[in-house]
Amino acid sequence: MADLTLTTYDWVPEPPRGFVRDLRVRWALEEAQLPYRVASTPFGERGLSHFAHQPFGQAPWLTDGDVSVFETGAILLHLGGLSAKLMPSDPSGRNAATEWVFGALNSVEMASLPWTMLKFMGEPGSKFFDDFLRLRLKHMETVLSGGQWLAGSFSVADILMADVLRVVDRFGGLADSPACAAYVARATSRPAFAKAHADQLAHFAEADKVRGA
Amino acid sequence: MADLTLTTYDWVPEPPRGFVRDLRVRWALEEAQLPYRVASTPFGERGLSHFAHQPFGQAPWLTDGDVSVFETGAILLHLGGLSAKLMPSDPSGRNAATEWVFGALNSVEMASLPWTMLKFMGEPGSKFFDDFLRLRLKHMETVLSGGQWLAGSFSVADILMADVLRVVDRFGGLADSPACAAYVARATSRPAFAKAHADQLAHFAEADKVRGA
Repeated sequence: MADLTLTTYDWVPEPPRGFVRDLRVRWALEEAQLPYRVASTPFGERGLSHFAHQPFGQAPWLTDGDVSVFETGAILLHLGGLSAKLMPSDPSGRNAATEWVFGALNSVEMASLPWTMLKFMGEPGSKFFDDFLRLRLKHMETVLSGGQWLAGSFSVADILMADVLRVVDRFGGLADSPACAAYVARATSRPAFAKAHADQLAHFAEADKVRGA
Repeated sequence: MADLTLTTYDWVPEPPRGFVRDLRVRWALEEAQLPYRVASTPFGERGLSHFAHQPFGQAPWLTDGDVSVFETGAILLHLGGLSAKLMPSDPSGRNAATEWVFGALNSVEMASLPWTMLKFMGEPGSKFFDDFLRLRLKHMETVLSGGQWLAGSFSVADILMADVLRVVDRFGGLADSPACAAYVARATSRPAFAKAHADQLAHFAEADKVRGA
């Protein structure tokens, strides 16, 4: 029996709200309708107990009983093992979901993160990173034109891929990638995404109240 | 019974030799002493049959019977399921190996790849990406000062982390990270790494001969 607690920051500044990575975990938990608690860790002072769960001093992490998991990819694979709503149960479907979990993070986000970080920081753009992202999106256009979801049925791979592409979309990067844009719209129209997104915004809004902001 | 074929490029230019990602898979296969064949796919013309196995047109991929797996992270998790030499068999060790597979790729390589690509292309450095990498290495120093391997015993997570850090080391990026440098030296002194590395160099040298280079 799973005993799940998601830990995220107690507060973050306004700009990343709606995009903090706990959203990926909330989304998966809502899709699977697994019961869970949400706990907070200070955004400001990150102490030894934080690093004991997340060695890069980031959030989120998930505990399941006495197992603690960091990295959203590892967390989503863990949850995939708890619910067929998150991971196909046949070996071929499981393999497709697993390779696309890595595809989302190590092939697409690998190109989108430098690009979005430069945008987010208001740094000058870079032809090099523009081209890197454009090439990956070109291949994703082909993939996403061929089917509704990456592993046949909706899976944790779609949560990660849609969340990665959603950040690109935020900065106007999907203008020439209609299949990617349609995929993001399809994924984020799911009730579980809406609940996860609203819950993240409410969590940080509550922190503002406590701070008297 | 596993029936394993690793497919990599038929040829690559000189500079990436010894660093092509099939090395990660060769290394894991040698550690586990699993029998495997090596097949080639054209580096130059990447056709539909290539994209059918690897939707970004990259290499390597692994077939195990009629299952085809792309992304080195997914391939190494697949191999981890075939051998206790690659993945601890207890749940806590398996969890540690899985989260560090993602830690290597999504936290460390996420910062090292932009940095090394700029170095590799001879582009001007970027304070932004220098700082991003430096912060991740700082946390890895703490982690790697605390134990020989990431998941207690040697695992696929170490293959990925050592390979990621080895590329940073190639460009002088571990000069202020002695625990990371010692870890790379420890990992690459393993006979399975030496065999994998020599086999990759021999594979591409053979291609030069065929080309009459």
